[in-house]
Amino acid sequence: MNIIVDAMGGDHAPREIVDGAIQAVKEFDVCITLVGLEPQVRAELAKYDYPQDKIELIHAEDTIDMHDPATSSIRKKKNSSISVGINLLKESKKYHAFISAGNTGAVVCASTYFLGMLPGVERPAIGLAIPTLKKFAFLIDVGANTDPKPEHLLQSAIMAKVYAQKVMNINDPRIGLLNIGAEETKGTDFMKETHRLFLERLSNFAGNIEANEIFSGRCDCIICDGYVGNVVIKISESLMESALALVRREVKKNPVSMMGALLMKSCMKDIKKHADYSEYGGAPLLGVNGLVMISHGRSNAKAIKNAIRATIREVENNMIDHVIKEVTADEAR
Amino acid sequence: MNIIVDAMGGDHAPREIVDGAIQAVKEFDVCITLVGLEPQVRAELAKYDYPQDKIELIHAEDTIDMHDPATSSIRKKKNSSISVGINLLKESKKYHAFISAGNTGAVVCASTYFLGMLPGVERPAIGLAIPTLKKFAFLIDVGANTDPKPEHLLQSAIMAKVYAQKVMNINDPRIGLLNIGAEETKGTDFMKETHRLFLERLSNFAGNIEANEIFSGRCDCIICDGYVGNVVIKISESLMESALALVRREVKKNPVSMMGALLMKSCMKDIKKHADYSEYGGAPLLGVNGLVMISHGRSNAKAIKNAIRATIREVENNMIDHVIKEVTADEAR
Repeated sequence: MNIIVDAMGGDHAPREIVDGAIQAVKEFDVCITLVGLEPQVRAELAKYDYPQDKIELIHAEDTIDMHDPATSSIRKKKNSSISVGINLLKESKKYHAFISAGNTGAVVCASTYFLGMLPGVERPAIGLAIPTLKKFAFLIDVGANTDPKPEHLLQSAIMAKVYAQKVMNINDPRIGLLNIGAEETKGTDFMKETHRLFLERLSNFAGNIEANEIFSGRCDCIICDGYVGNVVIKISESLMESALALVRREVKKNPVSMMGALLMKSCMKDIKKHADYSEYGGAPLLGVNGLVMISHGRSNAKAIKNAIRATIREVENNMIDHVIKEVTADEAR
Repeated sequence: MNIIVDAMGGDHAPREIVDGAIQAVKEFDVCITLVGLEPQVRAELAKYDYPQDKIELIHAEDTIDMHDPATSSIRKKKNSSISVGINLLKESKKYHAFISAGNTGAVVCASTYFLGMLPGVERPAIGLAIPTLKKFAFLIDVGANTDPKPEHLLQSAIMAKVYAQKVMNINDPRIGLLNIGAEETKGTDFMKETHRLFLERLSNFAGNIEANEIFSGRCDCIICDGYVGNVVIKISESLMESALALVRREVKKNPVSMMGALLMKSCMKDIKKHADYSEYGGAPLLGVNGLVMISHGRSNAKAIKNAIRATIREVENNMIDHVIKEVTADEAR
C-alpha cells in the first residue's frame, strides 16, 4: 500500500509531517510518498534513520498557504504539493490515498476538480470523528459544502453510514439530523425538507438531534450543512481551550488550588487523551473519486501518523467501493 | 416600575419563579405582577414573608408546555399565562416589561403577534449575553429567526449595538459577523451579501468573526442567524457539562485526583461564577414593540432575579426608544 502525503501542508510542515510519515512506515505496513519542495523535505528526512525503500519523495515546486484563496490558487499554482499529490493519486494505481494538513479549501477544490465525484454523489463533504461521552461519533459536513441541497445531505448521510461501519467499526450506526428541535416540524424549510427525505430514504434514521446532544453519544452519525458543522467544531475546540485557559488563570491565584491541580495532573492527561481529536488524526473528504484525508492545520507528527493509520483502514476496507454500492442501492430505490 | 412575570414558565415553575420574584422585590425598587394559575401561585406565595404591595397576582387559566407547538398553542390557548401577560404589557402603561422562562417559540410568537414590530424592524431576534475570556459579549440571534434576510441581520446588529451600550455598558461595541472565514469572500452567498451590507451601513463593524473567536472576547456583539446561534449556545452549554461529567468520572477512579479536585473546589467555584450564564438571567427578545425577556427553561430563583435586574436596566435606559432612534437613523441614510 502506498499513501501520498502533502509534505508542505499545515502550520508545522514539513518538520512534523516528515516525522509522522517516518513513524508510520516504522509502525504500519505502508509506503509513504512525500510531495513537496525537495531540498526542504530531504533536509528533514536526513535527520532520521528509517527504511529508505518505504519512503519516496516527489518534488512539487509550488506551495499553497493556509490563507490563499482556494479556487484561484489551485488554478494558478499548477505545481503545488496539493495538485501534484492529487494528480498522482488519480493517474497511478500504485497510490491508494492522499493526505494533507494544508489549506482545506484548496484540497477540496483540487480533489473535486481532478478526481471528480463518485457516481451518485453530487457534492463533497468532510466528515470528522469527534469524541463523545460514550465513543466517537461522526460529524459530517464540517466545511466542504456550505450551501447544500437536501439531496446532498442524504448522500452525506449514506457515506457517513459506510464510514461508521467500515472504518469506525460501528455495526448499526444511528443517524441524526442536526436541527434546533427534536420534532420534525422544527427548523428551517430546508431542514424540514431534508427530514422528510431522510424518513423516506434512510434506513438508520434516528430523527433530529439537537446541538446539546452531539456529545452525549446518542447518535453515531450527525448530519449537517458545512457551515453549521464548521461552527460546531470551531466552537468545541475553542471552548475547551478557553475553559482550560480560565482554569489556569484562576488556579494561579491560589496556592491550594495549584496543589490541587498538580494532584489532578495524571487524571487530566487521561481526560485529554479521551477527548483527543488527533486519535483519528484527520477528516475524510467523502464523495470524490479517490481516498482523500484532511488533517488539522495544527497537526503534529502524532496526528499525521494517526491520519495515516485511519487512511490505511479506509484503503483496507474498500471505502470507495462500499460508498459506490450504497449510493447506487439508494438510487435504485 | 412594574414588571410582569410568567409564573408558569420553565421547568421549575411556579416554585422558582415565585421565589425569584420575591427576592427581586426585596432587593430592587420594582413591583412584580405574576401571571398564572391562581391557586398554585398563591400557594407558593404563602410560603414567604414579603412586601404584599409589591407583588400582584393575575389569573391565567391556560398553560403552554415547553413542547407545545408555538403558533398553534398561542392561537388555541387564548388565556395562557404568556398571552395574558403580553396583552397586559400591551394594554396598560402601568406595566414596563414581560419576562418568561416558558416555551421560547410561544413567547416569540405571542410577542410578535400582540405587540407588533418596532418601526424599521422586520423580524424579532433573541440576544444572549455570553461569558468570554475578557467580559460578556452579546450573541444575536439565538433562535427567533432561523431564515433571515441580510436586512434582518443588519437590524439585529443595530439593536445589539444599542443593547451593548445601554444595558451592558460597553461604550463603543465592536460588531462581528459570525462566518466560517475571516475574509469577506468566505461563506455562503447569504453571508457575503450580509457582509457587504454591514460594511456599507454599520459604523462599528469589525468584519467577520470565526466561531473559535467567540469566547476570546474580540467582538462585543456577534451577529448570526437564529439557526446557527441556537447551535452555538446549545453546543457551548452541553460541551461544558460533558467536560465536567468526564472530569467527575475520571477523578473518581483515583484517590490522588479526588484529593486534587477537593483542593480545587473553591477555584472551580470562582470559574463557574465567571462562566455563569445566569449572571444576565435572560435573553432579551429584540425588535418587538415592548420589552420582553426570555429566561432559560431551567431557570432557578437566582436566574429569575437576575433576569428581573437586567430588565430593570432595560426599562431605566429606555431601550425601546434608543432602538427606534438608531433604526430610524439607519433608515434615513
